[in-house]
Parts: sequence; C-alpha cells; structure tokens
Amino acid sequence: MRKIDVFNHIQPERYCRHIENLATSRQGIGLRTAGNPRLRDLEHRFRVMDEFGEGYCQVITVPGPQPALLAGPQESPEIARIANDGLAELCSRYPERFVGFAASLPLNNPEAAIREANRAIRELGALGVEIFTNVKGKPLDAAELAPVWDALAALERPVWMHPSRSPSLPDYTSEKKSRYEVWFVFGYPYETSTAMARLVFSGLFDRHPGLKIITHHMGGMTPYFEGRVGSGWEVLGSRTDDEDYSGVLAGLKLPHTEYFKRFFYADTALFGGRAGTVCGLDYFGVDHVLFASDYPFDPKAGQYIRETIAILDGLPVSEADRALIYHGNAERLMGIPAAK
Amino acid sequence: MRKIDVFNHIQPERYCRHIENLATSRQGIGLRTAGNPRLRDLEHRFRVMDEFGEGYCQVITVPGPQPALLAGPQESPEIARIANDGLAELCSRYPERFVGFAASLPLNNPEAAIREANRAIRELGALGVEIFTNVKGKPLDAAELAPVWDALAALERPVWMHPSRSPSLPDYTSEKKSRYEVWFVFGYPYETSTAMARLVFSGLFDRHPGLKIITHHMGGMTPYFEGRVGSGWEVLGSRTDDEDYSGVLAGLKLPHTEYFKRFFYADTALFGGRAGTVCGLDYFGVDHVLFASDYPFDPKAGQYIRETIAILDGLPVSEADRALIYHGNAERLMGIPAAK
Repeated sequence: MRKIDVFNHIQPERYCRHIENLATSRQGIGLRTAGNPRLRDLEHRFRVMDEFGEGYCQVITVPGPQPALLAGPQESPEIARIANDGLAELCSRYPERFVGFAASLPLNNPEAAIREANRAIRELGALGVEIFTNVKGKPLDAAELAPVWDALAALERPVWMHPSRSPSLPDYTSEKKSRYEVWFVFGYPYETSTAMARLVFSGLFDRHPGLKIITHHMGGMTPYFEGRVGSGWEVLGSRTDDEDYSGVLAGLKLPHTEYFKRFFYADTALFGGRAGTVCGLDYFGVDHVLFASDYPFDPKAGQYIRETIAILDGLPVSEADRALIYHGNAERLMGIPAAK
Repeated sequence: MRKIDVFNHIQPERYCRHIENLATSRQGIGLRTAGNPRLRDLEHRFRVMDEFGEGYCQVITVPGPQPALLAGPQESPEIARIANDGLAELCSRYPERFVGFAASLPLNNPEAAIREANRAIRELGALGVEIFTNVKGKPLDAAELAPVWDALAALERPVWMHPSRSPSLPDYTSEKKSRYEVWFVFGYPYETSTAMARLVFSGLFDRHPGLKIITHHMGGMTPYFEGRVGSGWEVLGSRTDDEDYSGVLAGLKLPHTEYFKRFFYADTALFGGRAGTVCGLDYFGVDHVLFASDYPFDPKAGQYIRETIAILDGLPVSEADRALIYHGNAERLMGIPAAK
C-alpha cells in the first residue's frame, strides 16, 4: 500500500552550508540538528526508505531551528528562500522519494513570510507551509502574525505545526530551567497543546474556517486529556482573577471542543507508542490522522518508520480506513495526486 | 461492586476557618478552592455519594494550595496538623463514607514534614501522605527533600502526588505567563510528568525501591507519550550542551522506562476521557490503575464520578480486573480492609 510519510526532515546541501556559516550556528544554535549526518545523507536515506517498499515516500521539511531563531528579520527571509529552493529541487529530482514539501517561513518578518509563503506554494509547488509553535517565544495568536494567518488561509493549503522549544519553558520552576531534556520529551507536546489552545480561543478558526493545521506528534496532549479540554475549559475563567475570560467561550461560533477536532489534524509520529496511537485515532477520527515517522530523528535509522507501520498495520480498522491514514488523507489534504 | 474513589478533596471545618484567616488567603491564594462550597457541604456530598450506592466511598485529602504555599515554614506545620486532625475526625465519624485520608505535609519545612507524616500515619491512621509536584517551585528531587523521602519510604505507605501550578510555568513564553488557564488544563499534567521524570532520573527509586506513588490524572503525559519517554530518553544527553547526562541512564539499576510503570500508579481522574483511560490502563496495567473522580472539582456535582464509572463499566476487561481498579488495588496498596 502507498505510504506517504508526511512529516520528515532534511537539509538540502546549500541550506546546510548556509546555516552553518551563520553566526547563530557558530554560537551553537542549530548545531545539534546540523550535526545529524542523516539529515544530509541522501544515499543512506534512500537505502533506509527502500526497506519499506516502492509505495513508501516522504513529505519533507527542513528541521528546526526555524529561520526566526537562526537570524534576525533581515537575514531570516533568505534562510527560508534557500531552504525552500533546496526542498523544491529535491522534490523535482526525486519525485518518487519526495512527493512534496512544506515550506519554511521567516516568521520574525511577517511581510517576508507572506511573500515567501506565496512564492513557495505558487512558484515552487510547496504543498503548504511549516510553522513552529512559537516565534522566539511569541505565541502564534500574536497580533503581528494575524496577516500571516490571513495569507495562509487565502492560499488554502495545510499548515504543518512543529513544536519549538520555548526559551523559558521550564521542566518546571527550578534553578535549572530544564533538566533531563524534559523540554523535549514532555515540553514539545505541551508546546503543541498550548499553541492549539491559543489558536482556538483567540478565534482564529472563526475568522478562517478553511484553515487546516497538521500537528506533529498526534495532537499533543489533547486526545489523552480530552476530559480536561472539555469540562476543564467549560468553566474557563473560574480559575482566573487577573483577567476576564467570561466572554471567550460565548464569543466562539462552535463549542470549544469542536475546534480541536475539526481544524487540527494529527500525525502518527509517536515514536512507537501504540496505545497513544489508538487514543489519538479515537479522538481525531480516521479522516484526521496521517502517517508520519519524523525521519531521521529516530535513535536507529528507520526505527520509527518500522515501528509506526507495525502499529498502523495492527490497528483494528478496515483496510479502507488504514489507506486513509497511510495516504488517502494526505492526498486529499495536500493535493497529492493519487498513485497510478 | 465496592468503589473506592481514591483521590478527592474536602475542607474540614476548622481547617477551612484557619486558612481563611491566613494573610495569604486574604491575599487571594487559596480563595478559589476555599470558595467552592462543595468542599465543605457534607450533607450535599452525601446526597451526591448516595447516587452511586452503598459500595461507593471516598479517600479524602485537603485541596491545594499546599501548606507551603499558604504560609512560611514556621506556620505551615500547624496548617498541616489542623488539616490532618480534621481529615482523621471525618474518617472516624463517617467510616462508611470516608475509608481513609492522605495526610497533608508542610514541605517547606522538611523536619516538620517528617514529624507530621509519622504523626498522621502512626497516630491518626492516615493511609499515606499527599505531596504536590513542586514545593513553591522547588522540584521534588531537591536535596533538602531527600530526608523526607527517606522517612516516607520507611513508613511504607503510598504517596498521593497532586499537580501544583508552577509559579513560572508559562502557557508558553509570552508576556502573559498563562492565558486561557492552560496552566490548569495542560500545565497540571505537564507538571506531573516532569515530577515523575525528575524522581526517576535522580535515582530515588533505586535508593527506595519500596516507594509507591499514586499520580493524579492517570500518570500525566507518560502513557500517551510512551514512545517519547522510551526512545526519546534512550539518547538522553544528545540534546544538551551545558550539562553532562551521559552517566544518568547507566547509573540507574533498571531501564528508565521500567521506573515509570513500576513505581507509579495512576488514578482514573481524566474528567470523562474514555480513550485516555484506555490508553492509561494499557500503559500502567490493571494492577496500577485506581478509580478516582477528583470530587468535588467537577462542573456539576457528581458528574466525574458518574462519567468515570460509565467508562470503567464499559472497559473490555474481566470483572476481576474491574474489581481491582474499583477497590482491589486500593485495598492492597493502602491497606484498606476488604468490605465484609
């Protein structure tokens, strides 16, 4: 069966050279990902992909840090352009391997981000764009990003949402801001969940009901904590003294719980978590879950692809539903032509 | 069937009067919970409990804020004593309603906390103690709390772990530290998850293999993100430049994933989340999941009890396993005599 792995990372050659020459990279930002050779080694990636048969292909993005973390608003647009030119070239050179890409955006420069989103989608054929859960700590519902959302809605393409480490997210309050890499294991899903909530309660989806956001790692915490999301927020405002939230729920066109399921999609990049996959699928439904492995960020190359396929193949769903998760939803959502 | 609801909150009369007279309460801390009349109204609580039959009973604790947030180390011990005296009195006066209590501790005064833990368990008959996931922002693996853990291990009673809002946990970085009460909906489980991780990686359970910790709200994020907990932490240290974690995993006696399942228990207080309950049960196993509703913090009195029972009654498990979740695990873990 065709398997479209919708959330993966790669570093095109020129992009890689470019960010390694940036002062920020020399200061350490981005060195971790830049230091992962699997992000660049095409030969190795193709050998890994071959294990999963002809039907297996990838949608690619560049890994974080996002342009806004690599450079200021003057330089970040060029970083995004170089990234997207490189992603587009890889897709055109290896169409069987890479069925498309999500474009990088310089979100610390909203005007340039809007231009680049249009260029990447209209001229380079990007399937959509990738955003991160915060822009240097600025939330995605910040006023200055509203024009970007307007532009993305007008482009009518999906948005890939990737977690971004919050500069101040602690493992929780402690002298050391984050110990034991909790910022990654639990902080990333927390970031994703929080970004989802802010987009919902700020009314984004009432302004732009056509937006479709693909959350990395199966929708963050929302499926497991559906009860908290539901009745926990039914009394929004009852726990807050310093701000008036009494009008927030009433100001939304739909019950708040509807937004989390209707406007968000979830990928299966749960790193081999079977019970979580079942829970996420139960929450989002078979039309809103897409196969993804987060290659190459698995401890062993191909491990997450292999484990995720084993989980999906074992799900007690019909073959038609399994096909939606493996490729049908991606084809519909991203406009990828069905395989011949 | 007997149903022991293991994690609920109540305010004994004298405790309630006492904290309302505290300067901190007058400043607003604790007013939210103190303001919930269902925490004090016994008549109403009993009417709600009656709906669920004779077999339904509760294990009680006082709600947050914990003594360490209500007063300094000089005053907090008295707050805990008053709380525990009141909880013990309620249990002895209504043994059919309240089968036991978890004692409050003044953790900003470790010596007094150790004395109070011994007094509450040995003299007042507490089933165990309740701790919060941080002590005024201090993590539970802080050096000064080590003697408290030594004492709790020696007492050989379970520890109820309740989330505590971290003073600095942002919804994520933003001018406003927390918007839309994300600190509650997602922040609480994040706090719980982080506290679990710190206790595991700091080696607490190698020092005290007899410790048993009951996590509120089904183990935080660990079941849904089992994959991140597993392979995400297999490479602990690879994402960190400013601290050396290379020896952490090697320094543990067991694979790190084992600790999360072996030393932690989870209650079913997921506020009506069915898929999460299935996921949590799959992760922790039927011997480590206990029925709880978090009364009276449901939007409608009894709502979470009713919804949780409906979920548990609908689980595809044997009646013997269902009995473990409803009462068997609690009886074994807390030393509650089996019903006649």
